[in-house]
Amino acid sequence: MDKVRRNERMAALTMLLTASPNRIFTLSHFAKLFGAGKSTVSDDVKLLQGVLSAYGLGKLDTVTGAAGGVRYRPELTREDARGFIAQLCKELSDPSRLLIGGFLYLADILAQPRIARKMGMIIARRFYDAAPDFVLTMETKGIPVALMTADALGVPLVIARRSSKVYEGSSVNINYVTGSSAIETMSLSRRAVKEGQRALIVDDFLKAGGTAKGMADLMAEFHVQVLGSAFVMATAAPKHKLISGELSLMVMGQDPGENPWVKPGNLLEEAPLPHDAINKELSL
Amino acid sequence: MDKVRRNERMAALTMLLTASPNRIFTLSHFAKLFGAGKSTVSDDVKLLQGVLSAYGLGKLDTVTGAAGGVRYRPELTREDARGFIAQLCKELSDPSRLLIGGFLYLADILAQPRIARKMGMIIARRFYDAAPDFVLTMETKGIPVALMTADALGVPLVIARRSSKVYEGSSVNINYVTGSSAIETMSLSRRAVKEGQRALIVDDFLKAGGTAKGMADLMAEFHVQVLGSAFVMATAAPKHKLISGELSLMVMGQDPGENPWVKPGNLLEEAPLPHDAINKELSL
Repeated sequence: MDKVRRNERMAALTMLLTASPNRIFTLSHFAKLFGAGKSTVSDDVKLLQGVLSAYGLGKLDTVTGAAGGVRYRPELTREDARGFIAQLCKELSDPSRLLIGGFLYLADILAQPRIARKMGMIIARRFYDAAPDFVLTMETKGIPVALMTADALGVPLVIARRSSKVYEGSSVNINYVTGSSAIETMSLSRRAVKEGQRALIVDDFLKAGGTAKGMADLMAEFHVQVLGSAFVMATAAPKHKLISGELSLMVMGQDPGENPWVKPGNLLEEAPLPHDAINKELSL
Repeated sequence: MDKVRRNERMAALTMLLTASPNRIFTLSHFAKLFGAGKSTVSDDVKLLQGVLSAYGLGKLDTVTGAAGGVRYRPELTREDARGFIAQLCKELSDPSRLLIGGFLYLADILAQPRIARKMGMIIARRFYDAAPDFVLTMETKGIPVALMTADALGVPLVIARRSSKVYEGSSVNINYVTGSSAIETMSLSRRAVKEGQRALIVDDFLKAGGTAKGMADLMAEFHVQVLGSAFVMATAAPKHKLISGELSLMVMGQDPGENPWVKPGNLLEEAPLPHDAINKELSL
């Protein structure tokens, strides 16, 4: 029956780890659950690591130390991420998506769970090691991708509102200037975040950066550090945004007299090698 | 090496099926992917069915017919669903959540990916067989649970807005009356849904039912059939809502001079036995 047991453990282990992304489970936890030895579970984990890697289905890390164990991090391979975004760019370049005023119809793509999940996985990959405490978005259209990013990172989502609501309790409100020079309000419940936390900003669209800057200002009011910002779509113009260091899945631009073009953004570019990897390369 | 191969297949099969909930995969698809025979993959599927059932991790169905194959449906066991909702009810009954005006602070719970996913699984379970074409919600707070419901059902999410937006193209706008007798607008892009589709309404809160009725009216404008409606929280009063047949995860009420109470809703009740199951019972 040992053969069957391992097969069963492999399936259950896969389910349990992937259902709680980026959460560390001790080997003892699984050993107890399966009535197996820790070394047996350790072998299961190694086997699963190989499978995930071979099929490009994410990453299973072994974390050492007192709080150690194994954790699953959803990831698309670079190749899959590029193929997925290239496909989206093609779809979004279809003239039927063009609206009056040069806008692109994006709402259907942003709210598809499978698409939002893949986008969230690509964004999360860049921020696993930075380990934000929560993902912040501004209502409405960015919520699905921000939720899926938060899910992959294993952290809560926090949603800033356009106005304060009675059912959110006392709030901090700030004013910000949009790209079209309008003054808008952004509101967040006092209970939503804690001083000293670290935020990742995720939203659907970045043009001048007024809303993104508003979110950063809002976080400053809460004494929360912003670790980075990622957007589904950034516009090529204006080149200089009101925020810096922004990442995007896609970039949209328009040449005079032409329909807009959509290209992969800087989240799809080769990430710079981490320092120790560079040293390794040099020593070869 | 056969032993290792089956272990690997089990893990990969689990990952691939759970990553695309409620989608039918042919056995040939997996046979080709794994370089294995269809009967071998069929044995893998049976093994996985047993594991999922033993650990209460969802349901793997074999679908017969021309478009047949296997599909994974995320499900909480009745026991897990009850435990999860009981825990939420307890947490929401904490006096610190009480806001001025008798409102409950719910925003943090609604936007937690892991909580929203479990809520979505409980709602989806009731509607797998009804097979809606999409999930409809009204911005903002219901979006996470509606997205996770749509994810489990393997269908898109459609988000109605409070006003029409230039980046959503031409839209259908309706007016509706809220519980506090205010007249509000609800807007949906003409491109968002197609005539003849079937919708499931999911939202965070149901009081008098004005917003829910608005969503149903909006669907009528699009000639879309509403299969049902499910809410995270329904209020005990008023007892008669502007819609009927509503389902809820939790119910909230208040006795004179007391703090509000929160109890499990009718989504947690024993579902009536299907007709053939009743016949079976009677024949025993």
